[in-house]
Amino acid sequence: MRDVLPPLRIGIAGLGTVGAGVIRLLRENREGISARAGRTIEVVAVCARDRTRDRGIDLSGIRWHDDAASLAADPDLDVVVELIGGAEGAAREAVEGALSRGTPVVSANKALLALHGASLSALSARHEAPLLFEAAVAGGVPAIKLVREGLAGDRLLRVGGILNGTCNYILTTMRETGRAFGDVLADAQALGYAEADPSTDVDGWDAAHKLAILAALSFGRPVAFETLHVEGIRDIQPADLHFADELGFRIKLLGLAREGEAGLEAWMRPCLVPKAAPIAGVEGVFNALLVEGEFAGSQMIEGRGAGAGPTAVAVVADLIDLARGARLPVWGVAQTCTPARCVERGQLSGAYYLRLDVQDRPGVIAEIATILSGYGVSLRGMVQHGEADDARDTDSVAIALLTHRTSEQAMLDTISRIEVLPSILGRPLMLRIEAG
Amino acid sequence: MRDVLPPLRIGIAGLGTVGAGVIRLLRENREGISARAGRTIEVVAVCARDRTRDRGIDLSGIRWHDDAASLAADPDLDVVVELIGGAEGAAREAVEGALSRGTPVVSANKALLALHGASLSALSARHEAPLLFEAAVAGGVPAIKLVREGLAGDRLLRVGGILNGTCNYILTTMRETGRAFGDVLADAQALGYAEADPSTDVDGWDAAHKLAILAALSFGRPVAFETLHVEGIRDIQPADLHFADELGFRIKLLGLAREGEAGLEAWMRPCLVPKAAPIAGVEGVFNALLVEGEFAGSQMIEGRGAGAGPTAVAVVADLIDLARGARLPVWGVAQTCTPARCVERGQLSGAYYLRLDVQDRPGVIAEIATILSGYGVSLRGMVQHGEADDARDTDSVAIALLTHRTSEQAMLDTISRIEVLPSILGRPLMLRIEAG
Repeated sequence: MRDVLPPLRIGIAGLGTVGAGVIRLLRENREGISARAGRTIEVVAVCARDRTRDRGIDLSGIRWHDDAASLAADPDLDVVVELIGGAEGAAREAVEGALSRGTPVVSANKALLALHGASLSALSARHEAPLLFEAAVAGGVPAIKLVREGLAGDRLLRVGGILNGTCNYILTTMRETGRAFGDVLADAQALGYAEADPSTDVDGWDAAHKLAILAALSFGRPVAFETLHVEGIRDIQPADLHFADELGFRIKLLGLAREGEAGLEAWMRPCLVPKAAPIAGVEGVFNALLVEGEFAGSQMIEGRGAGAGPTAVAVVADLIDLARGARLPVWGVAQTCTPARCVERGQLSGAYYLRLDVQDRPGVIAEIATILSGYGVSLRGMVQHGEADDARDTDSVAIALLTHRTSEQAMLDTISRIEVLPSILGRPLMLRIEAG
Repeated sequence: MRDVLPPLRIGIAGLGTVGAGVIRLLRENREGISARAGRTIEVVAVCARDRTRDRGIDLSGIRWHDDAASLAADPDLDVVVELIGGAEGAAREAVEGALSRGTPVVSANKALLALHGASLSALSARHEAPLLFEAAVAGGVPAIKLVREGLAGDRLLRVGGILNGTCNYILTTMRETGRAFGDVLADAQALGYAEADPSTDVDGWDAAHKLAILAALSFGRPVAFETLHVEGIRDIQPADLHFADELGFRIKLLGLAREGEAGLEAWMRPCLVPKAAPIAGVEGVFNALLVEGEFAGSQMIEGRGAGAGPTAVAVVADLIDLARGARLPVWGVAQTCTPARCVERGQLSGAYYLRLDVQDRPGVIAEIATILSGYGVSLRGMVQHGEADDARDTDSVAIALLTHRTSEQAMLDTISRIEVLPSILGRPLMLRIEAG
C-alpha cells in the first residue's frame, strides 16, 4: 500500500473545455491528486486541431502531436485520454490505436462507447488494456460507478431514467408556460441550456447513448445500438402537456432498458408518467437515474446535469483508479460477447396515449373507436379540448385517447389506418405510458 | 485480466437481517457475482450470538465460531465481514483482530468507523489490510464511492446533507399535519420507519456518524467525533415549523462539514433552510447528499433511504472490489494522521432563528432586544403568533426572531441571559440558518 510508484504519464487527445479543464485540475490539485492516486499524474503529451489557439493554459514542456493517431502511438504513455468526441474518425482511431498497443484509455465519449461497445471491449480484453469512461455519463449522478461497482452484487432488472437535462428543461418549461417547442428551444439556446445544433439533445441521441452504456453495464453485455428505438421531443405540443396534466400525468423523455421475456427491451422516448411517480417530480435541468435490482429494489437518484467542471473531475477519477491499478473489464464482466439486440418495437406491449387532431364533425370518434377495436385495442379514457378552449382552430379539435395494455404493433397498425382518414388533420402522436 | 483466481473465502460476524441477506445474495446471484468479481466468493465461516435461531438460510457446511474474536482469528479467511454493530465490544474486537492479522475487513458499522476512524486507519495501514465500508452510509445514494473515488480528483470544500430518513419523515409530517413530535414519532414507530428505541435516529447520532465518515473521506482525515456538535429534533415544536414556513424556510436536520478559516467546522443540527433551496424540497424518508468541490461545483443527490436489501448489496460490492484486488487506504489517502478536531461551537458564525415563549405583557420584547443588542446581535426580523391563533395559551405568546450574521458565542451568551428572565416561559430554541 505504501510503495513509491513512478508517475503515471498521460497523453490527452483533444483540448476543448474538458481537456483544458483536466490539465488545470491536475495542476491546481496536484498534491491532493497524488495523495489519492498514490503517485503523481503527469501530462506528457497532447494533441488538438489548432496548435496556436490560446486555451489559457501553459503547454510548454508538453510534447505536441499533430494528430490523435500519432499521440495514441506514443510509446512513452501509460494512459491515453480521449476527449475529441464523435463515434468515428480521430476519436475512434485514437482509442482503438491505444488499446491495440496495450495502452489503457480514459474516454468521455458516450457516442463511441454506445456505438462500438462490443468491439472496444473485445480489444480491451485482448490487449489487457482497461478502458474507463466515468465522464461519458457524467450527469450530476455518479451513474457508472454506481451501476458497475456499487450494484455489482445485485441482479439488475431495469435501468434508465431522465438522462438529458436539456429535454427535461424544455418539457418542464413548455408545461409551465404553455409555449411551443420551438420558442422554448430558442430561449434555451439563448440561455446556454441547449446547443446551437440541438439535434443531439432534442432528438434523443445524447440520452440514448447514455442509456446504451448504462444497459451494457447493468446487464454485462453491450447493446446493438442500431436496434435501440430512439424518439425525441420535437413532436410534443403544448396540447399534449395540457392533456397529460388533465389525465394525471407528466410527459418526460424517458429511457429504460429491461430484460423482458422476448429479450432486451430498451428505448428512449417521451412517455406519460403518473404525477405521483417520483420520476414525474424531476423537473427542469435535473437528471434522474432509475435502477431496479432484485435485492436492492428500486432506487431513484436525482442530480443536476453536469458541465465541464464535473466532467473533468470524472476523467481524473478514472485516472486515479488506473494509477491505483484498477483493471475492470469494460462492461464489468470478463467474457466478450456479441451485442444484445433490442426486441422490435412491435413486440413491446404497454398502455398508450394517442393524440389526434380531427375535423370537428359528428361520427369521427366512432370511426376511430371502430378501427381501434378492430385491432383489439381497448380504450381506458378519452378527453377532448372543450368549446371554452379559445386557442383552438374552430374547424379542428384535438382529442386524446388512453388505451389499456396492448401490443405496440396493434397501435402502429391502428395509426397507419387512422392517419389516412380524411377527417384526421396532421400526424397523430403516440406516447407510451410508464408507471415510472 | 483473465487469470483464474482461487475463491475469496469470507467469514461473516453477525447474522441479523443484513448478514443473512448477504449469504442469500451470494448464493442466489452466485454466477453474476463471480463474473463481476473475476472469482467466486465463498462463505466459509460465520458467528452469531444464537446458534439455534432459524434465519431461513442453510448454514450446513459453514464453520461456526462461538464469538467474533475467534472468527477474526480464523487463519483460513481472506476477508472478515463485520455486521455486529456498535462502536465497542464484539464488533470492535472482530475488526481490530482481523486487521491486526492482516486480514481485510468489510464493515457496515457506521458508529465504529465514526468513533475509531483514526486508530482503524492506522491499523489497516500498518498491516496492509484494507477496510471497506460502503454499507456504513448505504442510504439510497452511493455516497462513499462518490466521495472517495468519483470526486477523488477534486478539492472538496463542503460535504453533508440530510442523512437520516426517520428524522426527515418526522419533520415533514409535523409540518404537514401540525402534530407534535411525540405523536408523529409514535406513528413512525408503528409504521416501522422508526426504531423502538428512537434515540440513535432522533437525537442525531446515526446522521452524525454518517457525516463524520463523509467528512473523513472528503478531507482525507478522520474526525475527532467527540468534538462534533450533535443536536437532534426532539425540541422542535409545531410552532417552529409554522414560524419557519411564515418566514420562508423549512426546518431540516442538516449535517455539514467544511474547512473553515479556524479549522474543520462540522455539526449535525436542525437548521432553517430557504424554501427555494433544493435541499428544502427533500421530504419524507428521502436522504440527500450535498457535496461541493472547487472544480465540480455544488451537487445535490437525492435518494430514498435504504433498508436491508441495499445494505447487503453494498457489502457485496465491497467484497467484489476486494476480490478484484482493491487496496484503497481507509480514508482515501495513505498518510495516517491524528484526527481533525472540529472548531468549538462558539467559534462558528451564522444567522440564527430564536423561538421564545414569553409572558404576554408589554416591555418583554424591548427587554429581549436590549440584551441581544448588548451582545452585538442585530435582528433581521421578528414574528409573533397573532391573536387569531386559537391554539395558544392566552397567558403566553411565542415569538420568533431572525438575526443577521453573528457569532454563535454571542447567541449562546444572549440565551443564557434571556432564559433566566422571569418573563421567559420554557426553554428558548435556537436554530442555525443555512443557505442550503
